[in-house]
Amino acid sequence: MTHPTARVPIAILISGRGTNMVALVQAALDGRLSADVRVVLSNRPDAPGLAHAAQMGIPTAVLSHRDFPDRESFDAALADALDSRGVQVVALAGFMRVLTPTFLRRFPHRVVNIHPALLPAFPGMHAQRQALDYGVKIAGCTVHLVDDGTDTGPILAQGTVEVRDDDDEASLAARILAVENRLYPDTLQALLTGRIQVSGRRTVRSIGDGSC
Amino acid sequence: MTHPTARVPIAILISGRGTNMVALVQAALDGRLSADVRVVLSNRPDAPGLAHAAQMGIPTAVLSHRDFPDRESFDAALADALDSRGVQVVALAGFMRVLTPTFLRRFPHRVVNIHPALLPAFPGMHAQRQALDYGVKIAGCTVHLVDDGTDTGPILAQGTVEVRDDDDEASLAARILAVENRLYPDTLQALLTGRIQVSGRRTVRSIGDGSC
Repeated sequence: MTHPTARVPIAILISGRGTNMVALVQAALDGRLSADVRVVLSNRPDAPGLAHAAQMGIPTAVLSHRDFPDRESFDAALADALDSRGVQVVALAGFMRVLTPTFLRRFPHRVVNIHPALLPAFPGMHAQRQALDYGVKIAGCTVHLVDDGTDTGPILAQGTVEVRDDDDEASLAARILAVENRLYPDTLQALLTGRIQVSGRRTVRSIGDGSC
Repeated sequence: MTHPTARVPIAILISGRGTNMVALVQAALDGRLSADVRVVLSNRPDAPGLAHAAQMGIPTAVLSHRDFPDRESFDAALADALDSRGVQVVALAGFMRVLTPTFLRRFPHRVVNIHPALLPAFPGMHAQRQALDYGVKIAGCTVHLVDDGTDTGPILAQGTVEVRDDDDEASLAARILAVENRLYPDTLQALLTGRIQVSGRRTVRSIGDGSC
């Protein structure tokens, strides 16, 4: 018999389609993720993911970085917006802004991202195209804690995808995305249920059934 | 019914234990690798792999880089030594020298190496330690064509290994080595039997049973 786990208030930040956001929300709705998704927030008002979130009954918000004079003031307002909703953990899902220490200090070791490459290979934009151009045979994705670099924080989990000889960017991205959509909810669940310990750059996952 | 494939004269270059050299020689002796290992050559006279090669009945040679005034002259002598033995393909197995274009021009697209990391991550020395220090969850190894960079040539094959929470450098290196010892003969066999096409940085393996 397992004990039910309290649901942790989280926010999901997007800038576009928010495919991984949908996977996280669905996992929360299905009971596979012990999360209360308080808000899906976009820095772009035209992000298609906002409508998807609303259709799933999740509150949405827009905080445009264009309304702020600099990164620091945007990040302070972003942290305030999440704090006001009681958010404890922040999941990035295609959020195309590098967060400053101003923001990260407010959520220490509680901001998570997924990147479509086996970091430290191919950080930044167009990771799948970078992988194809380099000619790797194994691609994948990485769930990591966010620091103030670009895809440089401690790694929580990785998944692999074989590159096929006839892959183009779209076909490879689609197969990686299928792995992302499983890996991200699973890893976030481990974090929310206290089963991941962070020690410097190494992270250790303790045994648990992740029930919620 | 399959046709026997002619055995290709190869050299294996080592600087130390030559663990992967032993795996390649064994594969050739077992008939899994269509190679006639003409020589195992070390740039260090004290490389323990030389004795292992001799025990398996393979001719050995030493060409010490200390006997040459510069890289170019060493590389020219090395190419001459291999040419004189009719070598067509060169397999590096822990050979700790970067080869110059002087050498590589003599064996275009015919020098192969294996590296204990998922390149382009963690090139150079102590790849397994680099991986542990970074905190990746998936490690592995890469068979690649050699160019004049450090572990930068076109990738032929990659294999993965899960990093365990209690791994140290030795335990991770041992599990990667087990994959190396399978991946290297298999990939070299594909190359020797003409089943790998190189197009820029991307390499394509055609279908074939690799029989020999």
